[in-house]
Amino acid sequence: MGKKQIAVLTSGGDAPGMNAAVRSVVRTALTSGMGVFGVHRGYNGLLNCDVEEMNLRSVSDIIHNGGTILYTARSPEFNSPEGVQKAAENCRKLGIEGLIVIGGDGSFRGARDLTQAGIPCIGVPGTIDNDIACSEYTIGYDTAMNTAMEMVDRLRDTTESHDRCSVVEVMGRRCGDIALNTGIAVGAMAILVPEQPYDFERDIYQRMQYTQRIGKRHFIIVVAEGAGCHVEELAKEIEKHTGIETRATILGHVQRGGSPSLRDRVVATQMGYHAVKLLLDGESNRVVAMRNGLIVDFDITEALEMLRRFDTELYRIAMKVSI
Amino acid sequence: MGKKQIAVLTSGGDAPGMNAAVRSVVRTALTSGMGVFGVHRGYNGLLNCDVEEMNLRSVSDIIHNGGTILYTARSPEFNSPEGVQKAAENCRKLGIEGLIVIGGDGSFRGARDLTQAGIPCIGVPGTIDNDIACSEYTIGYDTAMNTAMEMVDRLRDTTESHDRCSVVEVMGRRCGDIALNTGIAVGAMAILVPEQPYDFERDIYQRMQYTQRIGKRHFIIVVAEGAGCHVEELAKEIEKHTGIETRATILGHVQRGGSPSLRDRVVATQMGYHAVKLLLDGESNRVVAMRNGLIVDFDITEALEMLRRFDTELYRIAMKVSI
Amino acid sequence: MGKKQIAVLTSGGDAPGMNAAVRSVVRTALTSGMGVFGVHRGYNGLLNCDVEEMNLRSVSDIIHNGGTILYTARSPEFNSPEGVQKAAENCRKLGIEGLIVIGGDGSFRGARDLTQAGIPCIGVPGTIDNDIACSEYTIGYDTAMNTAMEMVDRLRDTTESHDRCSVVEVMGRRCGDIALNTGIAVGAMAILVPEQPYDFERDIYQRMQYTQRIGKRHFIIVVAEGAGCHVEELAKEIEKHTGIETRATILGHVQRGGSPSLRDRVVATQMGYHAVKLLLDGESNRVVAMRNGLIVDFDITEALEMLRRFDTELYRIAMKVSI
Amino acid sequence: MGKKQIAVLTSGGDAPGMNAAVRSVVRTALTSGMGVFGVHRGYNGLLNCDVEEMNLRSVSDIIHNGGTILYTARSPEFNSPEGVQKAAENCRKLGIEGLIVIGGDGSFRGARDLTQAGIPCIGVPGTIDNDIACSEYTIGYDTAMNTAMEMVDRLRDTTESHDRCSVVEVMGRRCGDIALNTGIAVGAMAILVPEQPYDFERDIYQRMQYTQRIGKRHFIIVVAEGAGCHVEELAKEIEKHTGIETRATILGHVQRGGSPSLRDRVVATQMGYHAVKLLLDGESNRVVAMRNGLIVDFDITEALEMLRRFDTELYRIAMKVSI
Repeated sequence: MGKKQIAVLTSGGDAPGMNAAVRSVVRTALTSGMGVFGVHRGYNGLLNCDVEEMNLRSVSDIIHNGGTILYTARSPEFNSPEGVQKAAENCRKLGIEGLIVIGGDGSFRGARDLTQAGIPCIGVPGTIDNDIACSEYTIGYDTAMNTAMEMVDRLRDTTESHDRCSVVEVMGRRCGDIALNTGIAVGAMAILVPEQPYDFERDIYQRMQYTQRIGKRHFIIVVAEGAGCHVEELAKEIEKHTGIETRATILGHVQRGGSPSLRDRVVATQMGYHAVKLLLDGESNRVVAMRNGLIVDFDITEALEMLRRFDTELYRIAMKVSI
Repeated sequence: MGKKQIAVLTSGGDAPGMNAAVRSVVRTALTSGMGVFGVHRGYNGLLNCDVEEMNLRSVSDIIHNGGTILYTARSPEFNSPEGVQKAAENCRKLGIEGLIVIGGDGSFRGARDLTQAGIPCIGVPGTIDNDIACSEYTIGYDTAMNTAMEMVDRLRDTTESHDRCSVVEVMGRRCGDIALNTGIAVGAMAILVPEQPYDFERDIYQRMQYTQRIGKRHFIIVVAEGAGCHVEELAKEIEKHTGIETRATILGHVQRGGSPSLRDRVVATQMGYHAVKLLLDGESNRVVAMRNGLIVDFDITEALEMLRRFDTELYRIAMKVSI
Repeated sequence: MGKKQIAVLTSGGDAPGMNAAVRSVVRTALTSGMGVFGVHRGYNGLLNCDVEEMNLRSVSDIIHNGGTILYTARSPEFNSPEGVQKAAENCRKLGIEGLIVIGGDGSFRGARDLTQAGIPCIGVPGTIDNDIACSEYTIGYDTAMNTAMEMVDRLRDTTESHDRCSVVEVMGRRCGDIALNTGIAVGAMAILVPEQPYDFERDIYQRMQYTQRIGKRHFIIVVAEGAGCHVEELAKEIEKHTGIETRATILGHVQRGGSPSLRDRVVATQMGYHAVKLLLDGESNRVVAMRNGLIVDFDITEALEMLRRFDTELYRIAMKVSI
Repeated sequence: MGKKQIAVLTSGGDAPGMNAAVRSVVRTALTSGMGVFGVHRGYNGLLNCDVEEMNLRSVSDIIHNGGTILYTARSPEFNSPEGVQKAAENCRKLGIEGLIVIGGDGSFRGARDLTQAGIPCIGVPGTIDNDIACSEYTIGYDTAMNTAMEMVDRLRDTTESHDRCSVVEVMGRRCGDIALNTGIAVGAMAILVPEQPYDFERDIYQRMQYTQRIGKRHFIIVVAEGAGCHVEELAKEIEKHTGIETRATILGHVQRGGSPSLRDRVVATQMGYHAVKLLLDGESNRVVAMRNGLIVDFDITEALEMLRRFDTELYRIAMKVSI
């Protein structure tokens, strides 16, 4: 009895903007008359009742911080029917009547299972990889790309001063969106992504030699983590085929951190708000998403079966202007 | 006879990403078989034939630079029927069969006039203010907001250390979008924009006193340049009414510069590409725009009559979570 | 009896790196076997016993944050013999046997008075202004200059795109060091500081016209806050005398905030360490300083009477290369 | 007869601030009545007479750019007595009566050889590694450290959110200065440098376990490139010995680029100025250096034989406060 109690957790890899989403969930819930628990370390916090009651000030001065104040972790125990049941029981004990899960597809599968076990869940896409099929945007994606871009901008200085070629691996797991957009933004001569077949001879060596003839002396190649291409080896191959000194760089986990960009803070705020509204309206098993620039939501089960669409038109534009 | 010749200019206030748009126009035109002139200092370059023939390398290593390599300026002379005729004649002399104008509404009116004088023009929205009614996004807007946000993040440190209130004026001319989004991103307690009526008593003093009671000790207020509110005076009023030490800051022209954000570089690349395609397709008097996240185009004359829509839902969310 | 107990406070304007200094004081004291209190809001915390006992984890994850976790404030009450006595008595009540004061000259006068009242004090120069005569470096100075420089770098883009002149006021109170170094770093055509007489005709108008003749089209002028020159008016004068469109910008409090630079973090760590060592060695009424790149210390009373030396050689170099 | 003609080149790895040094050399020489050639791609430009005559505007708007407008490259041909003779002859043909070489020890050996072949040379320390024994500061060092620090600050977010350990390799070749200072600035729990013996058991595992007991849950370890320790393997060892999830990151060439920090711009300006003054004064075979914060110079041959001193006191402070 009394006011409705919900909870929020962050799960999977951390992403800049997760704190903005947590803040928005907590503030929207509290100002809508609900109580909110913050659950620590993803689903683990539900398994061991590691939760804290949040108030308006619990989320003060966090909107600009990377990472997540709720911490995040994988939870092998939760990935079993017994784990899900235990989490659901703990929710009932704690009086948690709804849960907002900020994370990626794996986290949403957990949310679906927990919904089926009786705890209404709402997913919010929080991952730098932009690999959630139902949403054209995920929290953390803009920051990660800007970080990658700024790092390649720095590489450009040294690449240019030495007339070199830089091969740079960016994150994104199986999704080429970070690579495509970062590649465009840094004027990469070639962009290798999992979604597009590529051919070193045609897409790299010939392209380099052509642009070299028209005056280009330094080259940047952006490779998606999931493109199936070892950047150290590619660098050696390029040097062998073109004679141009080539260096490989793996940007790595630096891309996951940092103060979130404006877009990540604003979208996280909108999505957190929308998630609470769904719980208020009695919805469950929904995932918040961005479609055509608008905040919408989908059934989690359906969302998990959607297929990602790669922006081939944008890829074509990239190849047209990076010459 | 021979290949089609087009030109590109930047006009009005400069905006980060203009160089990415110029680069995309030049590269797309050249790789589509056209020739391209870069016109210097906006419409002035057409009046005094201050143009340069661009090649693929003319736009190398500019995508990451703020400002515009073509320079920009107001052109009072062009703002007369005689000016427009002279510009059109010069275009004909130079063999310019199409012109891409990167700028704001004022620049698009010039593009419309020049189209009527026989030179097909295409507008590309380039202004930090996001004040083009037909487009939900203008080149430079994302960078300017991130710059404003980072500056307010810095102010936050000193505001917090001293238990103060900061009143910050951000740019945007008659448009409150920069203020609204920056305000959300920095967790501003109040956001004053031209599009929403405000009341100091209700929206500032009472809100401050309420949040103070629940533990907040420092406050940020974001004010749009066009909100009709003098920030120095507002700061004094706040100090008088609440007893909280208050400082005003006008962020100023710093917001116009800097290396463009990833989003500005990518959208500028898409818009520049789209503009050239329109000329290739024989279109004229069109303005490129973003609608629902997609790149589209409108008739300039119709676009100039559209009314901007302020995102009141986003404003409501901002007020809900910044407490 | 038992272990020696000391305290640390931050006073005066906040400066990036103060947290690094607090962290170093706390950690050095604790690992040297002392106890440490953090005093809140400068000397006020001594007057109203607003202190917290610090442990090793109290200062975790603060080294990269601007502002000060101890807060800072002016304390009119402390600026009286009665205030000093009350603070000293409270120190005795709390068992505080030594105090480290991070701040500027005003704060050091307080430290001297409190030492005379029986509480051994050590000063650490923490102010962005670099206006402590005995030390060639103050904590926060490097960050503030880099912030100012980055902001002027942004202004440069728009200044260049429009062939304009920018007049920029930077902080530093009565000290021209921020202006001189920032001016050199941004390639300012003129730098106005309190320590050097200047003449608009000779140092600005003639210099602008000379460099204009040799091809310069945009100009940056850096003015120290304490130079006695109103930048808005100077901008108007320049426009009147040279015909070049001129804009004024006051960078303001943004310069006080932000994550500290590496140098500020390292020097703050060194100075905090040195301050604790002085207390351990039974010293009092000393101020930590940097001289010829080394960390040293002076008697506070003597330090307060030293005169600052302006680097006129560096000023001459600036004028030689910014042409 | 005629004015004195000098030349400037950048050699070895590029470093942020080299452009500021080139600008200072060119402007100081020109305003002192000399002529200046810019030599392209290090000593190669002397071998193939790839030089350009510089004027005051040749170095406009470069002070804020990373890399080097003169390009840099290794020159195997120059590393032979014949190469040196050929370079000296070309200097005589071109009328070059003095040469300023911005680079590291290898570049200074070339300068010494060229001086012996009759062309007076002056070295300026330009390398991010701070590995020039005679100078406590090299151009590019401050920027590289700040870049490394900012990248580790980003890693901290994700390290903290996941309760992980991050092992980060920073640059510096055989010199541990970048690692030591970056390690202090990011609050690294352990710092491995070539100058200090280390022991995994004592310096890492035990230290981690101790701080873990007092509440620390995430750890950063900074490793100098020259410390003789493979970070991927160290990460695995740490995970094995402590059970804490550990990730390795090699920051790589990103550390070499980017807009130079204020300090690098100012010191580069001072050093470039000093180098020209030495040539004006008829000096040769000198290297500019910083000692105790002052700009001085040494005989190149003597400088090359000096031994670097590692700041063991600073290392001790680091270990004291990072607990």
